[in-house]
Amino acid sequence: MIQAALKAGTHRRRCVFETFTRRLPAGRRYGVLAGTGRFLEQLAGFRFDDGQLAFLEEQRVVDGPTLEFLADFRFTGTIHGYAEGEAFFPHSPVLQVEGTFAEACVLETLILSILNHDSAVASAASRMTGVAEGRPCLEMGARRTHERSAVAAARAAVVAGFAGTSNLEAGRRYGLHTIGTSAHAFTMLHDTEEQAFRAQVDSLGTGTTLLVDTYDVEAAVRRAVEIAGPRLGAVRLDSGDLAGQAGWVRELLDALGNRDTQITVTSDLDEYAIAGLQAAPVDSYGVGTRLVTGSGAPTTSMVYKLVARENSDGVLEPVAKRSLGKGSVGGYKHAARRLDAAGRAGAELLALDPGLLEGESARRLSVPLVADGEILPGATGAEGVEAAAARHRASVAELPVAARRLSEGEPVIPTEHLDH
Amino acid sequence: MIQAALKAGTHRRRCVFETFTRRLPAGRRYGVLAGTGRFLEQLAGFRFDDGQLAFLEEQRVVDGPTLEFLADFRFTGTIHGYAEGEAFFPHSPVLQVEGTFAEACVLETLILSILNHDSAVASAASRMTGVAEGRPCLEMGARRTHERSAVAAARAAVVAGFAGTSNLEAGRRYGLHTIGTSAHAFTMLHDTEEQAFRAQVDSLGTGTTLLVDTYDVEAAVRRAVEIAGPRLGAVRLDSGDLAGQAGWVRELLDALGNRDTQITVTSDLDEYAIAGLQAAPVDSYGVGTRLVTGSGAPTTSMVYKLVARENSDGVLEPVAKRSLGKGSVGGYKHAARRLDAAGRAGAELLALDPGLLEGESARRLSVPLVADGEILPGATGAEGVEAAAARHRASVAELPVAARRLSEGEPVIPTEHLDH
Repeated sequence: MIQAALKAGTHRRRCVFETFTRRLPAGRRYGVLAGTGRFLEQLAGFRFDDGQLAFLEEQRVVDGPTLEFLADFRFTGTIHGYAEGEAFFPHSPVLQVEGTFAEACVLETLILSILNHDSAVASAASRMTGVAEGRPCLEMGARRTHERSAVAAARAAVVAGFAGTSNLEAGRRYGLHTIGTSAHAFTMLHDTEEQAFRAQVDSLGTGTTLLVDTYDVEAAVRRAVEIAGPRLGAVRLDSGDLAGQAGWVRELLDALGNRDTQITVTSDLDEYAIAGLQAAPVDSYGVGTRLVTGSGAPTTSMVYKLVARENSDGVLEPVAKRSLGKGSVGGYKHAARRLDAAGRAGAELLALDPGLLEGESARRLSVPLVADGEILPGATGAEGVEAAAARHRASVAELPVAARRLSEGEPVIPTEHLDH
Repeated sequence: MIQAALKAGTHRRRCVFETFTRRLPAGRRYGVLAGTGRFLEQLAGFRFDDGQLAFLEEQRVVDGPTLEFLADFRFTGTIHGYAEGEAFFPHSPVLQVEGTFAEACVLETLILSILNHDSAVASAASRMTGVAEGRPCLEMGARRTHERSAVAAARAAVVAGFAGTSNLEAGRRYGLHTIGTSAHAFTMLHDTEEQAFRAQVDSLGTGTTLLVDTYDVEAAVRRAVEIAGPRLGAVRLDSGDLAGQAGWVRELLDALGNRDTQITVTSDLDEYAIAGLQAAPVDSYGVGTRLVTGSGAPTTSMVYKLVARENSDGVLEPVAKRSLGKGSVGGYKHAARRLDAAGRAGAELLALDPGLLEGESARRLSVPLVADGEILPGATGAEGVEAAAARHRASVAELPVAARRLSEGEPVIPTEHLDH
């Protein structure tokens, strides 16, 4: 596309691309935007290196002028977007890119890959932390997704309220709280469970979490208390009827005098399993597979669509396609969330004419992220995760209570195009 | 775990870990192993760098002796596994790692992340290429998954029979055939569809593929033929009733004299949609979202379990956990696929005693990949993708015809533990 536009001279036309999803995954009430920070981080260093250019040349993927364009590539446009952690709805313009056709085109895959993945994980994570109602949720899914997705997934989970991650690389890269656990293999490595528990407590102290379901849970809990004493940090259950076991393990721990020893559970948890465990005496949830795969919705299905472009007379005009079932609405959209007197969200408002938002009691949603190619201070950085997590809490708290329902339903607020 | 084992002196115990899945995703008849080549590539350079070690030290994640162990880390063990592209079933030991506890433990996340992700994509891809019966399937999903997963997904898709990918980085890294397409944005960038088609043909020649559904399909097809002439490569349909449109677009192209112009279709395709289009005059399928997200099964749910370890007397003995619903079978498993006289697969055979496989008409499945820390020649490399793709074709051709059914069912061959 860039090569053909370069030859036709249309590559320089000023364009506006908008990133949005046409619909939420089936039954979901809201989505959570994540990945904006990662996108800005990568945009800062986005260049084509010699090896990449050589490949494109040798394989004749593009012609000489296009190679020159790519060799000099540096994004010079302007980007607005919803702040990371914000809730979104169908057609919310979560990232808006203004620039030449060629430069905006180059960024499409980067933007969509990051936002589609990270938002899928954050949207699932938000349902889990919502239903866990303050009990810590811990991200442990690295083994069930691509090795690099895993690092991004941990970050997205923390944006949406997870308390920590077992992914040390995510901890290092994004300053996340890291946690760990021992596996059945550690117990089985030793000649007896007792030796394994002693080895763990000797090295990590009594505050550690002992895994008690390798052989016999009751015997293991008694053994754990015997070895670690009253300050044993926690026991972990990873199989069987977690709610039932948590009940009697709690009673057993209390009877043995270990009232402060916590119970943490793992084993294919998701928002529904967590809901089912909320009545049980569980202190924290370790979530893996279902979190990093978006709990049934592994992508957010966001698209990146041209909504306005300069015509041959140099005038920026709205454009839209008419493809069946995939039609688009032309023009740059200003977005705001309508709030009632109590601060409760009522609708997602989109307007081509920003004046239409003036009379509304509404919170504006887009913030400037990049101006003339420069990433704005505070728009990115490691500290972004904490700020995004705070924004997620505030944004979700603002939604109608039905947002928290796990049953399938419509988006909890409608999206209104004010210009129609 | 490593820190505690180091302190207890059990880190040096010889161990065997096996990678397998307890079950296939609901309804699937077989799985396809992918990622072995990527794992070996990463294993070759697997070290902990100064920045990583400094993080672990500063955050007190591990103690001094563990830091020293990690600083010197280099895998010295032995690995066997199914060859990449091979079909697998529940409990197939697709990767077996023998080494000290500590070194085998370090590799767990790397192995599971890669095999779980890549095999999920390859397993979905195999169903798509199976049902497409020779019509080329093209990978176009980069935008719907994490930016690095996308590169691995393209590779896995080609292992399972895809003819090419739009992911240029995957093309560069793994020597895959790359393809491309133009988007609606390219059409809308121009003042008219005619100008867009002319720009594309001017730059890319008449053999290019023109996207014809931005405005009016019939008008666009006529325009495409007018501009590109009888040698127009293909037209792409991306919305609406693809089967119906393909039918009349084919008739229109033929009537206009463009019998050699192909029709390629895209738009949320998966194996079911492809099956529904097989009766239509479609020449190739572009598949995105559903491919890179595993078509409903985004992970293979493989686990990495300790099945044998040296005891305090230095004797290697089988170990197994008894966790409810997650029990494991101890001991190193030899694997083979039973074949009848016609070469048709009948069962996946697992045996602790390899002698039990001798009397069977069966094909042995495990091959040596790493010996004493050295990656064996031919076990990896860019040429691995083509070899894996050939193996995939052969392995799937060997399965009962029911393997190709899209309806939900049991694994197409049972897994038999011969020692029981």
